[in-house]
Amino acid sequence: MIQIGHSRDVAPHAYNDAKTVRHVEKRLLVGPKQGAPNFAMRRFTIGVGGHTPRHNHPWEHEVYILAGRGEARSADGGTPVGPGDFVFVPPNDEHQFANVSDAPFEFLCMVPLEGDDG
Amino acid sequence: MIQIGHSRDVAPHAYNDAKTVRHVEKRLLVGPKQGAPNFAMRRFTIGVGGHTPRHNHPWEHEVYILAGRGEARSADGGTPVGPGDFVFVPPNDEHQFANVSDAPFEFLCMVPLEGDDG
Repeated sequence: MIQIGHSRDVAPHAYNDAKTVRHVEKRLLVGPKQGAPNFAMRRFTIGVGGHTPRHNHPWEHEVYILAGRGEARSADGGTPVGPGDFVFVPPNDEHQFANVSDAPFEFLCMVPLEGDDG
Repeated sequence: MIQIGHSRDVAPHAYNDAKTVRHVEKRLLVGPKQGAPNFAMRRFTIGVGGHTPRHNHPWEHEVYILAGRGEARSADGGTPVGPGDFVFVPPNDEHQFANVSDAPFEFLCMVPLEGDDG
């Protein structure tokens, strides 16, 4: 059955160790609970001064920027991104997403199911 | 290498047979060209009076509404959707997306690579 929801009704999972990851909220919009067989759709909100971990892993990210201004960082440096931009992070590439503005930075990030921690 | 682009810079593919599909534009943001190994990210724009085909297929859709007002239709009827809503269409479920407003209706639609025609 087709399942429909609103992203603001999905409870966020907060990530913040005040060092490697700061002010990150993830909402798992579509994943195993909905019966997704292959990949998950998550919505991230990064607060002012926040960033995801700088890391790599064996799965890819497909990212679409919804709101705010951020930076997509690779081993080669950072690139400014904003609404309507898309980012492909290949498997095993080092990456980090950071808020470089004074407003929330929001994006969708799709990963194979193995790449989401629930 | 991380790849970044803006959705407006991606050339659209138009679908319109004036019957089963009307006023649909697809931009393939991330797919085989970028080296995506598992799934594709596409941005759809459905013009006023437009709709996708009513059909089903063996792969799922994961959809996020970006702009406008539309209807997600299943065998059981239609549900209004707007910005921030997400839709999961399981494999083999009948579905159709229609613009029910007087402005463009825009959404992201992710599918396994087998489900995108390029």
